[in-house]
Amino acid sequence: MAATTVNKTAHAFDKGRHEALLNRRFFYAPAFEIYGGVAGLYDYGPPGSSLQANIISEWRKHFIVEENMLELDTTIMTPSSVFETSGHVARFADWMVKDVKTGDVLRADHLVKNVLEAPLAGDKEARGLAAIPSPAEEKKKKKKGAAKATVVQLPDEVMKEYEIVLAQLDNYSGEDLGDLCKKHDIRNPDTDNEVGEPQLFNLMFASSIGPTGQHTGYLRPETAQGHFLNFSRLLEFNNGRIPFASAQIGRSFRNEISPRAGLLRVREFNMAEIEHYVDPEDKKHERFNEMRDVKLVLLDRHVQEAGQTTTMNITVGEAVDKGIIANETLGYFVARIYQFLVKIGINPERLRFRQHMSNEMAHYATDCWDAEIQNSTGWTECVGCADRAAYDLSVHSNKTGHALVVRQAFKEPIVTEKEVPEWNKKNLGKTYKQDAGVIQKTVEALDQHQLTNLKGQLAQGKAVITSSDGKEFELTPEVLTIELKTIKQSIREYTPNVIEPSFGLGRILYTLLEHSFWSREQDVERGVLSLPPLVAPTKVLIVPLSAREEFDPLVKEVYSKFRKAGIFSRVDDSNTSIGKRYARNDELGTPFGVTLDFASVQNRTMTLRERDTMDQRIGAIDEVIAVVTDLVNGNTNWEEACQRLPAYDGVQAVE
Amino acid sequence: MAATTVNKTAHAFDKGRHEALLNRRFFYAPAFEIYGGVAGLYDYGPPGSSLQANIISEWRKHFIVEENMLELDTTIMTPSSVFETSGHVARFADWMVKDVKTGDVLRADHLVKNVLEAPLAGDKEARGLAAIPSPAEEKKKKKKGAAKATVVQLPDEVMKEYEIVLAQLDNYSGEDLGDLCKKHDIRNPDTDNEVGEPQLFNLMFASSIGPTGQHTGYLRPETAQGHFLNFSRLLEFNNGRIPFASAQIGRSFRNEISPRAGLLRVREFNMAEIEHYVDPEDKKHERFNEMRDVKLVLLDRHVQEAGQTTTMNITVGEAVDKGIIANETLGYFVARIYQFLVKIGINPERLRFRQHMSNEMAHYATDCWDAEIQNSTGWTECVGCADRAAYDLSVHSNKTGHALVVRQAFKEPIVTEKEVPEWNKKNLGKTYKQDAGVIQKTVEALDQHQLTNLKGQLAQGKAVITSSDGKEFELTPEVLTIELKTIKQSIREYTPNVIEPSFGLGRILYTLLEHSFWSREQDVERGVLSLPPLVAPTKVLIVPLSAREEFDPLVKEVYSKFRKAGIFSRVDDSNTSIGKRYARNDELGTPFGVTLDFASVQNRTMTLRERDTMDQRIGAIDEVIAVVTDLVNGNTNWEEACQRLPAYDGVQAVE
Repeated sequence: MAATTVNKTAHAFDKGRHEALLNRRFFYAPAFEIYGGVAGLYDYGPPGSSLQANIISEWRKHFIVEENMLELDTTIMTPSSVFETSGHVARFADWMVKDVKTGDVLRADHLVKNVLEAPLAGDKEARGLAAIPSPAEEKKKKKKGAAKATVVQLPDEVMKEYEIVLAQLDNYSGEDLGDLCKKHDIRNPDTDNEVGEPQLFNLMFASSIGPTGQHTGYLRPETAQGHFLNFSRLLEFNNGRIPFASAQIGRSFRNEISPRAGLLRVREFNMAEIEHYVDPEDKKHERFNEMRDVKLVLLDRHVQEAGQTTTMNITVGEAVDKGIIANETLGYFVARIYQFLVKIGINPERLRFRQHMSNEMAHYATDCWDAEIQNSTGWTECVGCADRAAYDLSVHSNKTGHALVVRQAFKEPIVTEKEVPEWNKKNLGKTYKQDAGVIQKTVEALDQHQLTNLKGQLAQGKAVITSSDGKEFELTPEVLTIELKTIKQSIREYTPNVIEPSFGLGRILYTLLEHSFWSREQDVERGVLSLPPLVAPTKVLIVPLSAREEFDPLVKEVYSKFRKAGIFSRVDDSNTSIGKRYARNDELGTPFGVTLDFASVQNRTMTLRERDTMDQRIGAIDEVIAVVTDLVNGNTNWEEACQRLPAYDGVQAVE
Repeated sequence: MAATTVNKTAHAFDKGRHEALLNRRFFYAPAFEIYGGVAGLYDYGPPGSSLQANIISEWRKHFIVEENMLELDTTIMTPSSVFETSGHVARFADWMVKDVKTGDVLRADHLVKNVLEAPLAGDKEARGLAAIPSPAEEKKKKKKGAAKATVVQLPDEVMKEYEIVLAQLDNYSGEDLGDLCKKHDIRNPDTDNEVGEPQLFNLMFASSIGPTGQHTGYLRPETAQGHFLNFSRLLEFNNGRIPFASAQIGRSFRNEISPRAGLLRVREFNMAEIEHYVDPEDKKHERFNEMRDVKLVLLDRHVQEAGQTTTMNITVGEAVDKGIIANETLGYFVARIYQFLVKIGINPERLRFRQHMSNEMAHYATDCWDAEIQNSTGWTECVGCADRAAYDLSVHSNKTGHALVVRQAFKEPIVTEKEVPEWNKKNLGKTYKQDAGVIQKTVEALDQHQLTNLKGQLAQGKAVITSSDGKEFELTPEVLTIELKTIKQSIREYTPNVIEPSFGLGRILYTLLEHSFWSREQDVERGVLSLPPLVAPTKVLIVPLSAREEFDPLVKEVYSKFRKAGIFSRVDDSNTSIGKRYARNDELGTPFGVTLDFASVQNRTMTLRERDTMDQRIGAIDEVIAVVTDLVNGNTNWEEACQRLPAYDGVQAVE
């Protein structure tokens, strides 16, 4: 018998229902809720924590173990000197505007976006291009302070202009944003008041280290600096070899101006970051061929700079060959990111890679691609993948005087001949006094050709040189001789470049929860989270018919056998119907359920229920455990499982 | 052939060598080292991160999975209101003293300890009771600012007094510490200057949330408040049932005054905390009998308050029966903590549980035991296990008005009869005007016996009552009647008590690294970390004879087979002798090594080396993999493994 098919799209995605489910089942909740909460801070409850732990565990396998990366755990509290060097103290900031009357603070780019998107949506509706939003969506939007979309058709050129502004939003400076607010009369939608000039607000949380109050510290806004500062130790740990990568999973902090987007914009979050160190002259990747055929949806910078959002479907191999993605290593990681996201359950049709525009990218970076995941708020950056060149290691090295470099021994030393100036320091000082320094500098700036010339002149008895400010000096062989020397270079020293894939775990987790959500065709109130077994918080629910003592030994046996098989299960013997218990676990994303009843006690059988289809099968307890183990470990699918276990035709629990 | 025995105590523990090893192998290092470092902040390198991850993974299994705890992940940044309620803003502080001339800040209790321990050590030496410290140790001590131990015998009463002070150190107030400094002329050992009066310094890092600067936030100094604030959600998730526990592993921060003790006293650290919620009237534990026979070393509060440190050896069952440990649940967790620490490799002979003294314990706590682990600095608290009573839930509930309580349905409602006053509100108001309120209050304050009396008087036509301020009122049946009613109580509402085991992961990790360290008998320079396979960063080292291509396929095969078996291995094909590679991995604590050489290519055999004994065995590749898998999973030991694999009598790598 074939497995039942399920219609997961019978009902349109309903954000209200989805949020109610996540809240009811304590995936996450506003932190300090009983104190009124704090914007941008959330706590993960038991299912959210487990889901996060499972995503992290898979990330560790997919990246750290698979590629033998070196894991780090560095501190969050960071002295200000580090972020002064990295540029964060000066530049890690967003533009904010103040409501001129209330003093309310708004993030400038978000304000422009919210205000311009509304008439555009209204225009689309008027042109019959968009579905009319549900009253619930409208209400939500209004509550969140976005301007209401009025169904009015805009003049073509206005519509076009708005679209260009929105496509280039990440490209604007503070001045640009201020001009846009004036030009389009953009006001605080909550009060309809005008807003002032954009001002920079640094997003790092500041604190003070030690009891004297003299040492400013910042909470890191990313884990990356902790990798870079340990580069020399990491290189040594890797026996001096390159390429290699360090990896870190940890908490970071950003004091967002006015966060209103749930888990998508928070002040405290978990990141997973990789810093992959490569030879700047060789950004090929050993395993690139394994990724060559991975198909991606790309939105490149030229398209965006033309004010458009047209994507291309292309393999990684082709994108690198054509120079769309800058190099193999960057392409390799873009493909690996794609594979990871799809593996944990992100819908590949709602996943694209967007290239940073020139103004948007850090000045030192050579290329940068964001994995964007589509959700109810639009396309959201969830992973960044940037080629940061040698910037970070260079600035820290220059600042501290510690060489953060690779020393590579040539197999054969490179032998060259060179003209080298040799000074008679005593005569130089005696003859030229305070000019001695200038003279030395002038000669040392000469190239090989000029040195050969000078040598010729000196052989004649004297030579004349001209310093950079135009002064002439006469030199004699008593002061300077020039000799041809054999130079043997056996070490190449260079600052590696860094390719940085950087994952926002909370954003991935939230978009995954949206992609997994649907409602039963026959009852829109019955929500299901179809999380893949790989990341589902609980893999199997054990449901005894009741909390009666006679089921206890079997419940313990089954629980312990699942545990031995490495399958995380939970027992639900709460005082409610089996159907209600299953419905609760559909909301928790638990893929399988087993029921223990009187037949189990008598015949040692157990029914198995699959979450999405609600199909029920039956079999001997040990066989059901074996089937579930194979299902969870990905060694079989439900269709095959149905061939191993007959359908359950007994009295089914009413669902 | 029996396995080789090893002498791990041939050389005394050498702190200098140990620290050099941890630093050389990048277990951890001072954070921001290239910027000069910041006291109390450390980064974990690859082996430290893996060791920590493995300890956490075992903690999860031992506590969360085994006891079905509810995991949480709550925010670090916390609004000040929460810590005002919890008492941290007022009381989470240490006493500091300032050097009167330089302004240097010292922690008062640590200063007293350092200064008094030195003459005591000198006294012990003079009495021939202690080993003379090595010059290296002396130098270290001097550098760290502790007073030098002069070998002078103290008068008996002085020695006794110092000992009592040190035994009670955690019991002193700021005033006490100030008095001690004056009485014993305790000065800053770095400068020999006097110190000022002790002042309180709050140990929480402060910051500001949001762009206005108006909202103070603190970095949590423990994860506990995040559990308590979510209590209602957790209880609901647990279907309203109690007892249950929440658990959280996460970062916490304490702005230590002057941290100088490596990983034992840091400003940022990982904790693992459990909050176990119990009925205050029933602190029995369902699984206490499983722990009853666990033997512990206890140092109880009475012994310490008498100025002594004599421990007792006792089972948990006996300690609870005799009232030494306050209740079964506390005893259960003390025993589970003991089992966890021993399982990951802590030496049980250097582990004791110390009870808090009355002054040391929080005022609300009913009992508290610290797991202390002995190391080169003395006995260090690594886990706390406290019965916090109903304090935390009560204060947050009172502050916010959200009831943090359990509502328990009685199986049978409790039926009682009660005299209940019934007012005729209209007559009451008309007759007594503004006195009506006082009269109602007075009557409602009466107990059942008094109400029966009043009822009797009213039956006579009138009754007289006296308010709390002495006024008399006459009441009639027109205003008040009293009736016997049947009251059915079906719900019991109560605030649960909290038992809190709280683990400092960094301190456990460091003491484990000390307990694991020893030097080869024949060469003190050859350090070994005998980490158990359960927590060792890498389980197996794969060592090809050289980096030649011909070994590549075998290396890949063995690596991939270990990975499939769930065993984490690393390949070391660096350009150095096999002996040197093994020596490096002894320092990394890698328990097993396999060598691939020309014989492997020809015969598909592989040698297996055990870290502690350096024994080498040989076998077919797949058999060696099977043996190692059993060894790592704890399904066999080395002696049994030696029966499965013959000794290797080929040319051994020179070590």
